[in-house]
Amino acid sequence: MSFFEIHKSELVKGLSLVQGITGRRTTLPILSHLYMEWKKDGLFLTATDLETGIQETLKAEVFEEGKASVSAKKLYEIVRELPEGVIQIRKKENHWINLQCEKSVFNLVGLDPEEFPSFPSFQEKLFSYISGPTLKEMIEKTAFAASNEESRYHIHGILFIQQKVNGKEGLRLVATDGHRLSLIDRECSPIKGIEKGVLLPKKGVLEIKKVLGETEEDKEVGIYFNQTHGFFKIGPSLMAIRLIEGEYPEYEQVIPRDNDKIIKIEKERFYGSLRRISTMASERLEGIKLSFKRNLLELSSFHQDFGDAKEELDVLYEGPPMEVGFNARYLLDALQVMDTSFIYMELKDEGSPCTLRPETSKLPSDQLCIVMPMRI
Amino acid sequence: MSFFEIHKSELVKGLSLVQGITGRRTTLPILSHLYMEWKKDGLFLTATDLETGIQETLKAEVFEEGKASVSAKKLYEIVRELPEGVIQIRKKENHWINLQCEKSVFNLVGLDPEEFPSFPSFQEKLFSYISGPTLKEMIEKTAFAASNEESRYHIHGILFIQQKVNGKEGLRLVATDGHRLSLIDRECSPIKGIEKGVLLPKKGVLEIKKVLGETEEDKEVGIYFNQTHGFFKIGPSLMAIRLIEGEYPEYEQVIPRDNDKIIKIEKERFYGSLRRISTMASERLEGIKLSFKRNLLELSSFHQDFGDAKEELDVLYEGPPMEVGFNARYLLDALQVMDTSFIYMELKDEGSPCTLRPETSKLPSDQLCIVMPMRI
Repeated sequence: MSFFEIHKSELVKGLSLVQGITGRRTTLPILSHLYMEWKKDGLFLTATDLETGIQETLKAEVFEEGKASVSAKKLYEIVRELPEGVIQIRKKENHWINLQCEKSVFNLVGLDPEEFPSFPSFQEKLFSYISGPTLKEMIEKTAFAASNEESRYHIHGILFIQQKVNGKEGLRLVATDGHRLSLIDRECSPIKGIEKGVLLPKKGVLEIKKVLGETEEDKEVGIYFNQTHGFFKIGPSLMAIRLIEGEYPEYEQVIPRDNDKIIKIEKERFYGSLRRISTMASERLEGIKLSFKRNLLELSSFHQDFGDAKEELDVLYEGPPMEVGFNARYLLDALQVMDTSFIYMELKDEGSPCTLRPETSKLPSDQLCIVMPMRI
Repeated sequence: MSFFEIHKSELVKGLSLVQGITGRRTTLPILSHLYMEWKKDGLFLTATDLETGIQETLKAEVFEEGKASVSAKKLYEIVRELPEGVIQIRKKENHWINLQCEKSVFNLVGLDPEEFPSFPSFQEKLFSYISGPTLKEMIEKTAFAASNEESRYHIHGILFIQQKVNGKEGLRLVATDGHRLSLIDRECSPIKGIEKGVLLPKKGVLEIKKVLGETEEDKEVGIYFNQTHGFFKIGPSLMAIRLIEGEYPEYEQVIPRDNDKIIKIEKERFYGSLRRISTMASERLEGIKLSFKRNLLELSSFHQDFGDAKEELDVLYEGPPMEVGFNARYLLDALQVMDTSFIYMELKDEGSPCTLRPETSKLPSDQLCIVMPMRI
């Protein structure tokens, strides 16, 4: 009879990683399921929402090979509650599975595993490797700026493109929602398929970050792209994310080249001031006003129902007086992904895009945020 | 000019305690406000939802007495973001207030403080004292069983009634939602106004627990009841909770006196089994089946869409075989408020209420949960 044994903690680990992907799309019942296949070399769990697929390889003792498809959520609920110990899973009739652990016995309804969408095929030899923490950093510092609206598919995507960094090979990530943009460059060995740039959906990219967060920090991540998918190999997890088709905005044209008003600001103080002043910005637009004077920044806001707020901040600025309105949330988001004690804010006038970059960043930039001003 | 100074941490502490009460009822705009009154002996913050009122006494340096009424939520949002330090608050025209802290200046819209509902009057000399941890324990072990439906006002209430405990004066709390009941008795000095029992709304009682949770654990709590309100003095907080009018169900008649099937069960194991088996109970009713045999309990469940579950548990039981259905949630809730390693479950038959009590509890009981069975 087809069955295998697996330790509870190993199965919980695998199941927790796939929960974010299953059940997102409820139109096809099988997408709320896991595909489980147990072979001589272990248990393979597969989940997909047809856009992002994940495959986990888990340690298991397999007595006879088999496969099944069961509810991912229900299986996770059950396995989490089991005592620490060995779980025995066996295939039954009508695609059911039987699960035993100590004195607990569960019979779980299944669907025909052959109906589960197949995992995109990939070639082991095409993977290049990039440091896990670097990839995680790059995602954290860009993904926030991508649009959350799936229907605006091209700016819901995050651009992965080949980029020289200090004359060496590297990777650039770019995200924008039309109001702000974030860009980061990091050195890494050449990655196949990104010469002209590829677009990955924000949701899928955030899943990569989640899986990266649950593996050991210093691992290398395998990565490559073919015509239809990006593949990411992270420890025992393999992710396949469907590329977004379509043209990405010509982001390089958006990067300001002649912002000559340069302000150097202590990052934490700026962040605190923005948090305070934004409490009095209107909920929807979160508009605040920045007034730059010689070595002084005055932040102010006004709320129709609640009142007004004002604060002064010492900065380094030698230019002429200037007033610019911003969405405070965009500035806060940008500051949050900068690691230096000081940042540079560069402006042209009250109607042109402003750039923010960490103190250490070189121009054009290894990290850059662009924020459009708003009329206050 | 009327103004006072207060340390940020002191004001944040006071504001956080009143947030749960303001803004619950949005029909009257002033109920989303705080009433602030600064006198020679400090700052007094008052908030109310017309059912539960709270008054905080905070340390402040008052330069000239005054009062104001401002949005509780907005003031909290602002003050939380201020740097650690001294905040200066002054009264302005049209009921506005001005708030300054270091280089931040806020002007906050206010309403006429005279329009704020007055705090129920109370008499300091009527308070009796009960240990804070004891009151917190009594609330935690009963309130969960009260109905969440405010419209079912009598069982949304929690009964506070005088009760002899081991021949000494004491307090009893009782809560029920019609399907289960929880009761606890604890010794304490006599409390004024509870001779015949009074009913406090669940929401107000949970606010008491919250405030108790944020003060030092070992403090004494002042408590008394008049015709309309219960008063609770907890450190610098004074709460006034409007009593529910109406008759409480005759709960003493519900307590089974002839449950002769007595099962002694290891609590943690029973809890774990119930958690596992309830994963296969239907979502709405959470029905599971308990089958008692000689020194053995079999738990089982069945879910139309997902399958079935079964588990065996060693227990101490000498009676005849018996099968009873329960809502697993009710049993889990009851076990969660019992502190002993073993509990007693006492039954009569498959249609009569069952009692659960900690191993150490004496009959009739210092702690008791009653759960109605259900047909499975």
